Amino acid sequence: MMAAIDTKNAVNYVYDFADGSREMRDLLGGKGANLCEMTRRLEPGVVPAGFVITTAACVEHMSTGGEPEALAAQLADAVARLEARVGRRFGDSDDPLLLSVRSGSRESMPGMMDTVLNLGLSDSSVDGLARATANERFAWDSYRRFVQMFANVVRGVPVEQIEAEIAQLKTRRGVHLDTELDVEALRELTATFKRVFHAQTGDVFPEDPADQMHQATLAVFDSWSGDRAVSYRRINHIPDDWGTAVTVQQMVFGNKGDDSCSGVAFSRDELTGAPEPSGDFLVDAQGEDVVSGVRNTQELAQLREVMPEAYAQLAGILRQLEGVYGDMQDTEFTIEEGRLYMLQTRNAKRPAQAAVRFAVDAVNEGLLTKAQAIATIDAAALDALLHPTFDPAAKFAVLAHGVPASPGAAKGAIAFTAKAAVAAAEHHVDVVIVRPFTEAEDVAGFFAAKGILTSEGGKASHAALVARGMGRPCVCGASELHIDLDAGTVRVGDTILHEGDLIAINGSTGEITIDDVALVHAEIDPHFETVLSWADELRTLGVRANADVPEDARRARGFGAEGIGLCRTEHMFMAADRQPKMRAMIMADDVAERRVALERLLPLQQADFEGLFEAMEGLPVTIRLLDPPLHEFLPSEIELLDDLREARQHRPGDVADLERTLERVKELAETNPMLGTRGCRLGILHPEIYEMQVTAIMRATRAVRERSGHAPHTEVMIPLVNYERELTMMRELVVRVAEHEGMRQGVDYTVGTMIELPRACAVAQHLAAHVEFFSFGTNDLTQTALGFSRDDIESTILARYISEKIVSRSPFETIDRDGVGTLVRTAVAGGRAGNPRIELGVCGEHGGDPDSIRFFAEAGLDYVSCSPFRVPIARVAAAQAAG
Amino acid sequence: MMAAIDTKNAVNYVYDFADGSREMRDLLGGKGANLCEMTRRLEPGVVPAGFVITTAACVEHMSTGGEPEALAAQLADAVARLEARVGRRFGDSDDPLLLSVRSGSRESMPGMMDTVLNLGLSDSSVDGLARATANERFAWDSYRRFVQMFANVVRGVPVEQIEAEIAQLKTRRGVHLDTELDVEALRELTATFKRVFHAQTGDVFPEDPADQMHQATLAVFDSWSGDRAVSYRRINHIPDDWGTAVTVQQMVFGNKGDDSCSGVAFSRDELTGAPEPSGDFLVDAQGEDVVSGVRNTQELAQLREVMPEAYAQLAGILRQLEGVYGDMQDTEFTIEEGRLYMLQTRNAKRPAQAAVRFAVDAVNEGLLTKAQAIATIDAAALDALLHPTFDPAAKFAVLAHGVPASPGAAKGAIAFTAKAAVAAAEHHVDVVIVRPFTEAEDVAGFFAAKGILTSEGGKASHAALVARGMGRPCVCGASELHIDLDAGTVRVGDTILHEGDLIAINGSTGEITIDDVALVHAEIDPHFETVLSWADELRTLGVRANADVPEDARRARGFGAEGIGLCRTEHMFMAADRQPKMRAMIMADDVAERRVALERLLPLQQADFEGLFEAMEGLPVTIRLLDPPLHEFLPSEIELLDDLREARQHRPGDVADLERTLERVKELAETNPMLGTRGCRLGILHPEIYEMQVTAIMRATRAVRERSGHAPHTEVMIPLVNYERELTMMRELVVRVAEHEGMRQGVDYTVGTMIELPRACAVAQHLAAHVEFFSFGTNDLTQTALGFSRDDIESTILARYISEKIVSRSPFETIDRDGVGTLVRTAVAGGRAGNPRIELGVCGEHGGDPDSIRFFAEAGLDYVSCSPFRVPIARVAAAQAAG
Repeated sequence: MMAAIDTKNAVNYVYDFADGSREMRDLLGGKGANLCEMTRRLEPGVVPAGFVITTAACVEHMSTGGEPEALAAQLADAVARLEARVGRRFGDSDDPLLLSVRSGSRESMPGMMDTVLNLGLSDSSVDGLARATANERFAWDSYRRFVQMFANVVRGVPVEQIEAEIAQLKTRRGVHLDTELDVEALRELTATFKRVFHAQTGDVFPEDPADQMHQATLAVFDSWSGDRAVSYRRINHIPDDWGTAVTVQQMVFGNKGDDSCSGVAFSRDELTGAPEPSGDFLVDAQGEDVVSGVRNTQELAQLREVMPEAYAQLAGILRQLEGVYGDMQDTEFTIEEGRLYMLQTRNAKRPAQAAVRFAVDAVNEGLLTKAQAIATIDAAALDALLHPTFDPAAKFAVLAHGVPASPGAAKGAIAFTAKAAVAAAEHHVDVVIVRPFTEAEDVAGFFAAKGILTSEGGKASHAALVARGMGRPCVCGASELHIDLDAGTVRVGDTILHEGDLIAINGSTGEITIDDVALVHAEIDPHFETVLSWADELRTLGVRANADVPEDARRARGFGAEGIGLCRTEHMFMAADRQPKMRAMIMADDVAERRVALERLLPLQQADFEGLFEAMEGLPVTIRLLDPPLHEFLPSEIELLDDLREARQHRPGDVADLERTLERVKELAETNPMLGTRGCRLGILHPEIYEMQVTAIMRATRAVRERSGHAPHTEVMIPLVNYERELTMMRELVVRVAEHEGMRQGVDYTVGTMIELPRACAVAQHLAAHVEFFSFGTNDLTQTALGFSRDDIESTILARYISEKIVSRSPFETIDRDGVGTLVRTAVAGGRAGNPRIELGVCGEHGGDPDSIRFFAEAGLDYVSCSPFRVPIARVAAAQAAG
Repeated sequence: MMAAIDTKNAVNYVYDFADGSREMRDLLGGKGANLCEMTRRLEPGVVPAGFVITTAACVEHMSTGGEPEALAAQLADAVARLEARVGRRFGDSDDPLLLSVRSGSRESMPGMMDTVLNLGLSDSSVDGLARATANERFAWDSYRRFVQMFANVVRGVPVEQIEAEIAQLKTRRGVHLDTELDVEALRELTATFKRVFHAQTGDVFPEDPADQMHQATLAVFDSWSGDRAVSYRRINHIPDDWGTAVTVQQMVFGNKGDDSCSGVAFSRDELTGAPEPSGDFLVDAQGEDVVSGVRNTQELAQLREVMPEAYAQLAGILRQLEGVYGDMQDTEFTIEEGRLYMLQTRNAKRPAQAAVRFAVDAVNEGLLTKAQAIATIDAAALDALLHPTFDPAAKFAVLAHGVPASPGAAKGAIAFTAKAAVAAAEHHVDVVIVRPFTEAEDVAGFFAAKGILTSEGGKASHAALVARGMGRPCVCGASELHIDLDAGTVRVGDTILHEGDLIAINGSTGEITIDDVALVHAEIDPHFETVLSWADELRTLGVRANADVPEDARRARGFGAEGIGLCRTEHMFMAADRQPKMRAMIMADDVAERRVALERLLPLQQADFEGLFEAMEGLPVTIRLLDPPLHEFLPSEIELLDDLREARQHRPGDVADLERTLERVKELAETNPMLGTRGCRLGILHPEIYEMQVTAIMRATRAVRERSGHAPHTEVMIPLVNYERELTMMRELVVRVAEHEGMRQGVDYTVGTMIELPRACAVAQHLAAHVEFFSFGTNDLTQTALGFSRDDIESTILARYISEKIVSRSPFETIDRDGVGTLVRTAVAGGRAGNPRIELGVCGEHGGDPDSIRFFAEAGLDYVSCSPFRVPIARVAAAQAAG
């Protein structure tokens, strides 16, 4: 049919279905491209004939306000070809050709213009339709629906006005239902609609089908710039300059009696992925009736009974389409007088469970290779398979919504403080911490709590980060909650909650309820296990976990982590029983006193590390030396001032101690703690702290080696390095302390550095010569490269930046390729040049984000490390990246 | 004499003076290399013969503990050659060869080993010396001095023990002065010293001159690793692995009577640079006597009277050496019985005034080209010529010392608050602000004050930065001052000062005094003017100034600034009369209310800009839109809490307002304000602020154009850009507002962006397409690239980092080439690729630092911008960079 393409003009604005393909999605829209593909693949006649007006025509319309010069002629040619193919004529008074006109852009946009059906009907052709179908009422009902739809959708006549006319007529005729209107009534209604049309638009209703087509086409084009479409695009980050295509297709009718129906069909169960077609249909109905929910649909399986032949044909086509698209399909079909027509197909959206099931079955059926099958999975969505959730069968009332910040569901008594959470946990009471926001000193409570709920902050807030790291469900920024810590209440509208009251949160959806909703614990099902095992075969990128305590380490191994890529030693000091010892260390007046305090922490740290090493049984464990500024372990100045005022009145004995603490807090206070005295800067100012930690690491390594069969694979990591000499000083410290414990670098342990400052990326080649590994700290690298404080940006700037389309996603969720990514690539090149045997990993939050994992694979890293619950996701994403 | 070089061995450890040159400084040390050069350049015999043992021999000694195998033989050969040349023999009992042995490293190190003189004397040769000089007392005094010096310097016999022996002898002999000791006494003393030597070292005093030489050589080598030398190197950042050379030279004697003398001679006046030799000498004395200050020296001019021939010869040699070295010389000489010997020469250290004078004279005399002359100037030291200073003639008592943080001297009444400073200024009272540290809200007081004094913080503290920017003298971190703001006192030891008491500070030296010391106002003298005009001929880099008010702009022009590279609009809001309006803007509940508040600021901003444009008369003026976070303009939470508590008790009418302010302060509070809601992020969140500013800029541009003959060259600068879309949004805002005012981009004004984030450097090519200029904000780029908060680092980390040799200087003073420099180069390349016509400048503090200016010239920038007082320095440094 290539001859049909207009060759007089360089630009072809109209493609017959037979001339397009699914690769032409950008030009023909998703719907149009798939109709073309089906037309070429399926038996002739299964896809009603039609053509597509390209997005390029829309773009030209948008920029000029007019339409491409060649369009009218090309459109007329296309209609002529269509008439020839189906043997009916547009506007024919015998058996007229009727068309549907639909918008269809590159990506599905529910906010776009509705469909116009039955285009081609007119006062002259309606009788032809009546004759051809031998159903006068059907013909006139179709006609009045067309006039109504055209008036509203194409010319903007308000739907209320149309509905008012129908209501008046029904009153006059004394009927209640549209279906009770007879032919005469429908004729009268059609005439009335045309009068309304004229009154509203100033135009006579177009009787000429070509004119109808022209107006409908321009209306589809203009709908691209309509408010609904624009706001949908804004929300979904769809560029304004794509434009929409227009799909024109011969009408078929599912409402021609008991041997007709309309339906939607999935090639497999859309919820479970089970390998049977599923869906719904309605006998003697048009497609809109199926999706509108006005009538109760039947399950697709019943079609096998009702129309066995058509069902068999449909099932065969679904299988065929899966083969064509290599993915599960979501289709629309119509059966007209026993004959099956396919009206649409697309890859089926499906929950994680179905995605995993499909992938496994597709490989077993020989439909896809393992790599192809894994590519069909949305790795990010796998999260849902890994956390407890609200029982899907449970009914509950949603109290409020917040930001889904760390997946999974949790339920427990409200605790307003870390202390209360710890106390409750000691009595085996499940609690959910509820606070406006959280700080480092609250982390002790995180360990004790089942979940965390805050009224401020977003996905990058402290609460969210720590909760994700620990696999605790978390809902953040639930601004409907008014939390008054002094009063000990949470107010939501008229509801007032107190400490101890039951609350449940779903960190995957952001839902909050006070109903006692049942939780369901997720397990990795066999299909997911299979997918993960294939992912492991395919991927080249290693996957480790960030874990600070043995429990997390064991969970991570359960999820398939190949090591610990980041153990944050400071989290060990947050536990309630350790905070006093840590504070004593910080409050020390001199090095000697600090050493005494450190001596008390040493056995605790050693025990921590032994637990981690035992859990990991010889897999790599990367331990980062103390990183956060010391003031994070002390109360805030404002808290201390309050406490001091109170102590002066009621607890004079405490005053001296509080004054001393206040002084230290003031000394340690920093304007920008993120850029202050932390990381290896602490190690240089207070080497005794790192010496204690290295001693604990070495003793633990030896103890576990001697006690178990697995020699720990210990990696000591220096944080926040800028300068080569910082690194050599700290490495010398590690080596010296290790030698004192009888341990040798490169044999009993290795030394590496975080790469988390832009300067470190620039001088990576020099740094690499001194270490066995680099680990990219992409959180801090993002903070510094972009000058974005994670704690400050998300609640204020980021939402605005996303709405203004400055960024499409938080750079703390998905790595900023252009900026941070460039620095990472520089450092990878430098690192390998400086030390060809260097091991390169990433331990920032990005290590668990599929898009970022793709980048890290491209950049040539050896492994990613992420929170335990994201390990399976990372394994799948790594396999996809390898493809 | 090349034949003298040992050819049997690949390594030559000993160089005769005739075989070396000044280029061999690394191998022969500074002193040795210059002696070689003089030997080759001056008349034979003027430089006493000798040789140098290389630093390589020292390095080998340090690494092996022993000495190079070939050294002993090479040393013996060198001595033999020396004996042959001067016709005397080492240890000869008639007329023995006596030598001096000195250390001499690549850079002058006053902390190194002392000289050993008269080496070669022994019981047998002392009589030869007596005979040859016909002065037995001289010979024996020389001998006992040698033994004494050798024992102490070479073998470490404590000086106290030696002094005790001298004292005992004097008591026994009943004399008071060393000079009263006769030959007999000196003989006895020499014998006594040898006994002490034996008792202390276990060795017999070496009578063999070769043995003396060997021991002295090793002692020089070992002195390199002595405590004094090591700590000197630590302070002065001299690498440990350089090693020292050993210079061995024939002794000459300035103490042989009235026709002998020793002295130091500068080729020009060492204080003023006037073209006459200057210096000091002592008749009948050795060199040590001149520098020790024991006897009153004579001025060099008097030598012309005393020994006219020798003086004429010396003057000629000084001129000759200036020609050789192309610089002013600092020499040591001895005249022995009328004959002149040159013992040392080096480039003269001199104050800025002399350096400038020398440069001008050297060009006028044809000694140097302009470029060569300018290269002899230490650009950083020129600071001293530009600020008021304490009258050099004034006597005063130093109360305390602090960090010299912004040059110049200031004197006035103590003011503890900005408010007090402003009030005093209104009554024309000079004040010095004295505070523990300063914050943004204190800046109003900076305008009013003559100087700033703090007890905390260093050169990169807020006080220092703002003071330097405004050209206000500042002394920081004077930790001896105990400032009690509540009590209104400053305590320094026993001295207690109150508000209003007189205080004076010297920001160039860090001195603080309470004496009424006179100040001298500096003016650019004609020589400096000449140097600057030559610098302008030579340099290719433009020099602009950072200035926020017309007064600064006029000063900058006076210093030769070719434009304003940075006008910080926020400084205009710090003035006392504007803060309330600014606060009203920040406290606005909605955009409408904010617009009302902005309307009130608009005419003030417009007047500010008009003043700047008028001052600059058509030169470029780069105006940065509002940059700092809004909370900088509000009081702190702690202040407000205090105020609120007080108001609740005594001023109930203020409570509501304070509560509202507190709420806003809490809303605006940020964990890391440096990485928070500032720069163009403000412009995106609150476009109405930038709209007001752009309106003011455009109206001012037009008003000044219409009023004066000079059309302003207006450049609008967007701060803190990361993303291309941030820039396009803000540029669109500027263009839209400007068009509303009838102004056109590229004609009436240009638009540019700060490059001050690592991400911006990475994506510079994309940013460049949208703007006419980039200005590197190297302060913030340093903060982000290094993850160093300027406000936090200097007082805590930086001192330690310098002492640990991690950095040699603050990266906020001199640009970090490896890190920040790499980012700058990336952005320059990207910028020029994205827009070949782009103008590139720098407006960070580094723009006034000579080393950084050299880097910016290399990197290919078009101009630097710095504080007005550094403009002349930048002009000179830019000329040096062009050389």
